Amino acid sequence: MSEKLVYMFEEGNKTMKMLLGGKGANLADMTNIGLPVPYGFTITTDVCKNYYGNGGEHSPELDIQMMNAIKKLESKTGKKFNDSKKPLLVSVRSGAPASMPGMMDTILNLGLNDIVVETLAKESNNPRFAFDSYRRFITMFGDVVMNITRIKFEDLMDEIKTINKIKLDTELDVEMLKELVLKFKSLYKKETGEDFPQDPIEQLKRARDAVFKSWMNDRAIIYRRLNNVPNDWGTAVNVQEMVFGNMGEDSGTGVAFTRNPSNGENKFYGEFLMNAQGEDVVAGIRTPKHVEELKKIFPKVYDELVEIRSKLESAYKDMQDFEFTIEHEKLYMLQTRNGKRTATAAVKIAVDMFEEKLISKEDAVLRIEPSTLDQLLHKQFDPKFKYDVLTEGLPASPGAAVGKVVFNALDAKMWVEKGEKVILVRLETSPEDIEGMHSAVGILTARGGMTSHAAVVARGMGKCCVSGCDEITMDEKGKKFTCKGTVVKEGDIISLNGSTGHVIIGSVPVVEPTLSGDFATLMKWADEFRLLKIRTNADTPKDAKIARDFGAEGIGLVRTEHMFFDSNRIKAVREMILSKNVEDRKKALAKIEPFQVEDFEGIFSVMDGLPVIIRMLDPPLHEFLPKIEQEKEIQEISKELGYDSKEIIEKIESLHEFNPMLGFRGCRLAIIYPEIMEMQIRAIFTAAMNVSKNKIKALPEIEIPLVGNVKEYEILSKIVHRIALEKGAKGKIHYKVGTMIEVPRAALIAGILAEKAEFMSFGTNDLTQMTCGFSRDDAAKFLAPYVEKGIYAMDPFQSIDQEGVGLLMKQTVKSAREINPEIDIGICGEHGGDPTSVEFCHNIGMSNVSCSPYRVPIARLAAAQAAIKNNRKKDD
Amino acid sequence: MSEKLVYMFEEGNKTMKMLLGGKGANLADMTNIGLPVPYGFTITTDVCKNYYGNGGEHSPELDIQMMNAIKKLESKTGKKFNDSKKPLLVSVRSGAPASMPGMMDTILNLGLNDIVVETLAKESNNPRFAFDSYRRFITMFGDVVMNITRIKFEDLMDEIKTINKIKLDTELDVEMLKELVLKFKSLYKKETGEDFPQDPIEQLKRARDAVFKSWMNDRAIIYRRLNNVPNDWGTAVNVQEMVFGNMGEDSGTGVAFTRNPSNGENKFYGEFLMNAQGEDVVAGIRTPKHVEELKKIFPKVYDELVEIRSKLESAYKDMQDFEFTIEHEKLYMLQTRNGKRTATAAVKIAVDMFEEKLISKEDAVLRIEPSTLDQLLHKQFDPKFKYDVLTEGLPASPGAAVGKVVFNALDAKMWVEKGEKVILVRLETSPEDIEGMHSAVGILTARGGMTSHAAVVARGMGKCCVSGCDEITMDEKGKKFTCKGTVVKEGDIISLNGSTGHVIIGSVPVVEPTLSGDFATLMKWADEFRLLKIRTNADTPKDAKIARDFGAEGIGLVRTEHMFFDSNRIKAVREMILSKNVEDRKKALAKIEPFQVEDFEGIFSVMDGLPVIIRMLDPPLHEFLPKIEQEKEIQEISKELGYDSKEIIEKIESLHEFNPMLGFRGCRLAIIYPEIMEMQIRAIFTAAMNVSKNKIKALPEIEIPLVGNVKEYEILSKIVHRIALEKGAKGKIHYKVGTMIEVPRAALIAGILAEKAEFMSFGTNDLTQMTCGFSRDDAAKFLAPYVEKGIYAMDPFQSIDQEGVGLLMKQTVKSAREINPEIDIGICGEHGGDPTSVEFCHNIGMSNVSCSPYRVPIARLAAAQAAIKNNRKKDD
Repeated sequence: MSEKLVYMFEEGNKTMKMLLGGKGANLADMTNIGLPVPYGFTITTDVCKNYYGNGGEHSPELDIQMMNAIKKLESKTGKKFNDSKKPLLVSVRSGAPASMPGMMDTILNLGLNDIVVETLAKESNNPRFAFDSYRRFITMFGDVVMNITRIKFEDLMDEIKTINKIKLDTELDVEMLKELVLKFKSLYKKETGEDFPQDPIEQLKRARDAVFKSWMNDRAIIYRRLNNVPNDWGTAVNVQEMVFGNMGEDSGTGVAFTRNPSNGENKFYGEFLMNAQGEDVVAGIRTPKHVEELKKIFPKVYDELVEIRSKLESAYKDMQDFEFTIEHEKLYMLQTRNGKRTATAAVKIAVDMFEEKLISKEDAVLRIEPSTLDQLLHKQFDPKFKYDVLTEGLPASPGAAVGKVVFNALDAKMWVEKGEKVILVRLETSPEDIEGMHSAVGILTARGGMTSHAAVVARGMGKCCVSGCDEITMDEKGKKFTCKGTVVKEGDIISLNGSTGHVIIGSVPVVEPTLSGDFATLMKWADEFRLLKIRTNADTPKDAKIARDFGAEGIGLVRTEHMFFDSNRIKAVREMILSKNVEDRKKALAKIEPFQVEDFEGIFSVMDGLPVIIRMLDPPLHEFLPKIEQEKEIQEISKELGYDSKEIIEKIESLHEFNPMLGFRGCRLAIIYPEIMEMQIRAIFTAAMNVSKNKIKALPEIEIPLVGNVKEYEILSKIVHRIALEKGAKGKIHYKVGTMIEVPRAALIAGILAEKAEFMSFGTNDLTQMTCGFSRDDAAKFLAPYVEKGIYAMDPFQSIDQEGVGLLMKQTVKSAREINPEIDIGICGEHGGDPTSVEFCHNIGMSNVSCSPYRVPIARLAAAQAAIKNNRKKDD
Repeated sequence: MSEKLVYMFEEGNKTMKMLLGGKGANLADMTNIGLPVPYGFTITTDVCKNYYGNGGEHSPELDIQMMNAIKKLESKTGKKFNDSKKPLLVSVRSGAPASMPGMMDTILNLGLNDIVVETLAKESNNPRFAFDSYRRFITMFGDVVMNITRIKFEDLMDEIKTINKIKLDTELDVEMLKELVLKFKSLYKKETGEDFPQDPIEQLKRARDAVFKSWMNDRAIIYRRLNNVPNDWGTAVNVQEMVFGNMGEDSGTGVAFTRNPSNGENKFYGEFLMNAQGEDVVAGIRTPKHVEELKKIFPKVYDELVEIRSKLESAYKDMQDFEFTIEHEKLYMLQTRNGKRTATAAVKIAVDMFEEKLISKEDAVLRIEPSTLDQLLHKQFDPKFKYDVLTEGLPASPGAAVGKVVFNALDAKMWVEKGEKVILVRLETSPEDIEGMHSAVGILTARGGMTSHAAVVARGMGKCCVSGCDEITMDEKGKKFTCKGTVVKEGDIISLNGSTGHVIIGSVPVVEPTLSGDFATLMKWADEFRLLKIRTNADTPKDAKIARDFGAEGIGLVRTEHMFFDSNRIKAVREMILSKNVEDRKKALAKIEPFQVEDFEGIFSVMDGLPVIIRMLDPPLHEFLPKIEQEKEIQEISKELGYDSKEIIEKIESLHEFNPMLGFRGCRLAIIYPEIMEMQIRAIFTAAMNVSKNKIKALPEIEIPLVGNVKEYEILSKIVHRIALEKGAKGKIHYKVGTMIEVPRAALIAGILAEKAEFMSFGTNDLTQMTCGFSRDDAAKFLAPYVEKGIYAMDPFQSIDQEGVGLLMKQTVKSAREINPEIDIGICGEHGGDPTSVEFCHNIGMSNVSCSPYRVPIARLAAAQAAIKNNRKKDD
């Protein structure tokens, strides 16, 4: 038996989204639950896949099955293509497994030709409607199938309107429309060299293929990339009997939501237009009326709609967004789908639906797309305020910020000290900008992606950031930037929207996030299902506090290097680096030690009773020195520390590396200069002992970065235990020693490491860089095109590359657990806040994930969803 | 039962080298085959390992077993420590599992004290001998056990000689020696604060521990690093009854080889001195006599030696290097070991011994250390010529070179065009130096290790190179370098020895290598056992020819980028890079295409009938442009190509990468700019078709570099097949498409890749860099200390890191073969010429290894040895 390529609506159901697309599956489903859906059929997504697989050819089977479906359609509707009494007109619409609103093409009124239009005019007793439908059809067909630009059709229409001195399309009368149809057909002939096709079957085949082609149009590809929809899913095509809302004043069309999509309230919500087709609603020329008003105009239709509303919710167990048409007072359902909603609405609807016993608690938890919680967790532009966008970069770190522009970290600090709010604008940021980034309310960079330094650090700080704004031309020295002719100078006010990437000249009002009670309820429910522990990446007591308030159950990563950049420490850090022998190095480190003690005391105090992973100094030492061309800074250091500036330059040169990513950093520093790590360990135990005097329980977990060889771990963990003993912390402070897994070699020898290490934490940023051989800082040139071409389904820095890096992680967990079944295995890379990655971490059996403070609720929810999905899989 | 820590010689045998050390095992063995060995015992290497494991403490069991052994020794010899008639004197010597000549400490005459020396004087009837022995003992004990520098003893001796107006040690009479003993003892007391120990047991314990300590002295550590001896093997200690060759004119001592160690001739070879101890032979004050002369002096002893010579060879089946002592006309054997020999001798001895039916063909093949073949394959300094070494760098690429110094690639080319031989001296080389390196007869760099750019490229070219010569201060602009006060200017003649790293001022005569018939025989035998195919890395017909003559069975890597640097192409390459659109890029590429066709025609012609792997363009494009600071070069390009120099600078900047190793290179170039690869593929098929007209069979294997994702492979292999079709090569040229495995991700998904790829080739340099997270260019700072600390047993760039990278390779082969059992899997990194790595490749089931032309015989031999060893393991 050959494969089934075409399904009548009544043959499908809502579980068949991958095959029939979302729209097709829902039309099938609505048909089956008895809603008034115009008849039709769906051509499957497999046909689309084969079409692309075979270089634009279909299997001959397709046309056979389609002709068969048309026959059934004709019999059900009692209409026929080309019929001289009751001609069949159909719509041809795309419908992919994931909703991609407006991205692909649609053709309406198909089946019209020079003869049918006359029949329609007669039968409908509405010639204006008939010819208006025909001219719309020719336009859509010409545009979608033959690539004739719409403007050419519009120009012809404007011409007629000008001649006839009318303004609105609705003022065109039958004669004018007839003339227009002639003109459209001759335009069509001129552009394509052929007559407008008169055979409805030919029309249909060509429209169908045009819809398949639109799967690969630029905007669809971009939409999929932005929304993580795989390129190889394909679209289905829905062919459906036309119904007309523009048949006169007893007809109309509308869009409705079963609940309020903006705030989630359980109220019927929608709009309609009388005597209009769907596209008129969208065009926005006439103002639609609220759905409640239908009660007065067509009370029967209104009652039917209300009934449909509740039928839909019981059937779909979710808020629906549906389209309806009224043709001569008869109601038709054209489409239903789960309605898009704000995060606030999503949370309220989920909680309400559980309380209404419509869905289970698990379903309520599954109902929220974790990443949307972002909206609830940051300052936002006042949604009522309209603004003009100057340019758009990448939405690198969510939130909103308004401030005066500064161009370097020092200015940021100075302006803030003067009481200003500033936005730090840089070509790209580097570790020296950290303090300036701390001072600023927002960060804007001209270069760098979603995982650039600016983006990563800003997200860690929970600070608004727009990165990779490539329409900006920077002049850092001149303290100004130019964008599309607008020059923005130091001190000018701009606003950033880190959730959309918008950059706005001037000030946009900002509102604080309000976390409703429903949100808290939902998070509590999530925690009931969750197995993964959620920790946070936090380097300061302030961040730790935010994260703990958001439900973090520990710290998964304290990066100690950020502490080294503080202005009151960097001098000693540089002194340490420039030292020529161990003694001098130890002297310099002794100056940093009291600060480190304070850092750790602060963090331990906030995290009282919760574990805190502290990573030993990780970055290459050159990051703490100025660049070779920063002559002024070098001279300052020379003056401050009494080194000849030649010596400093030599040091900088000697620390230069061709590939710093693969260089002298991480535990390699500690192996060669153990005194640095010794200082850090001393500070940790001193701090832990100090806070314990105030009955605060510190649970330090000391993490060794960049381990690749078990001997590195052995040598360095011995230092920890020795100092614990020296400091009298042994037996008093409950501490652990563990290793990062970020070098592929560490992952490969995980079994060997697990014999020694007390915990493991994946550094998936570096692990991805080394496993895939991509430098995060350099990959922009090829990674975006790679994702476009589908080489990688998603940017592996945003979501774990499960096929490659993920396989290595899976092997790691397996071989570590074989040796040490109880070992804690976590993740502290940026991926810890990515819902898909969190699910993956759950699935491979990890113990915890760690993410930036503002992502903690997202991770909690994602972890709960992963657990629920897994349980359901087991039940199957 | 407690562990056996001490073995009498008669309790051991030659299979116990790991436990008893090489010397101990051979003494045991000689004892057992009935040779006249002075009695003794061996303290095992386990004792040494425990000593280091327990922080310098021994198990109490050791002394118990040692005292026991001393008792047995006393009973066998009929002598006793401290005996008033027949006092026992012993030697205490190190003996590790691997020979480490002269690296550790030895103490002779132990057992002497103020009383025993008198007994010895009386009993030997030779008081001079007794006191001479005592002063030697005090010196050695003071030096080795108490770290009193030998110079202080020598000064005292010189003092006495001056006072007594004598010159030679032998002129010291009894009274002088007695005085010297007194002075030595008081020096000992002054330096150590204690009296010279009189108790032989105490002497022995302290001497024993000093020998154990000498395992970790600096020169031993360095020796082990250079010779790949693991630090954790430890040394044994041999305690043996002293016999004296300095008992008078009826005594003597000598060293002999069972065959000539220099040329391998089957003739007894050795030297002896009458009335002397071993150290006198070494000191070289008296000229020793040839062993044949013994025939006249002590014919009985001579006959005994000749008999021992043949006993040794039948027992050890190898050429032996042995020490003997004659005490009052009685012959004693002190040591035997496999003799060090030149590669020429090694080959001749192996072949001869097979022909003498002493060893099997397999053993003959196993007998040659593959890496020593290097000596047979390069020009060498005339061994008869004595020279002064200016400085010593790393022996980066073997051979010898004499030429005039130049300081940049352009000068190299110009001088060579004028007919000069030049040595290119650079701080370090970069890809722009390639042509200069080609022109030069040798390369010297001040920076960079054994796997630096200069080293790798030079080895590939088979060109002599000394790298990392850090005593040199470079002044490239001033065209001179300084070393230890000597200034070497452009045009000065220097000589390089790439096998030793020596740099010599002036000209040293050079001899051509002669490959003896034995060498050819041995290689033929090797090929009988070998399973791995041996290919070569060659970029030119010349190199390909050399390799084929050395037995290469194909090319495993043609690096096409080197071809792009040629002066007549680089212009077009730069034009291509600077192009702003595909059309311009194609135009520029069209200029390179005919050259590429010629390149490939040349290589195919040489390799007629053998497969040739051609790697698509690999390096990041910035390597083809000058550096940003090379203003002159930028201006030249600007003039040549008509681009504004600002545009060129912008391009250079835009190509700058933070981590070029992980950047935009390899197949990523081909994905983004397919036209580059298309040109290369066209050139390959054109060349293959062209040479086929001359009945030459080209077997191109097109290799895609830096693949990490199967989709990269799919996209690019389609290009190959399309062009094969377009060029009419399909069906006519037998070609394959395959992938490098150098990104860890590729290794992880090897099963998926093996479904598509027709061959795989490990790029172990990059694979090591990414798996271990080391940049080869930057790792020097920590990798050398890492190897010293034993974190890595060997430099993973020199020999495959079997635990980590090797594990990944093993997984790769396994998962690829599961999918595609016939797939060819090779290696083309530098490791392909490293014998240990070749053995590993054999063991994990790979198909071939590829190495630089001059390493082909080494790889052939290593592969044969691996196969033989493996067969033997199976037989066990």
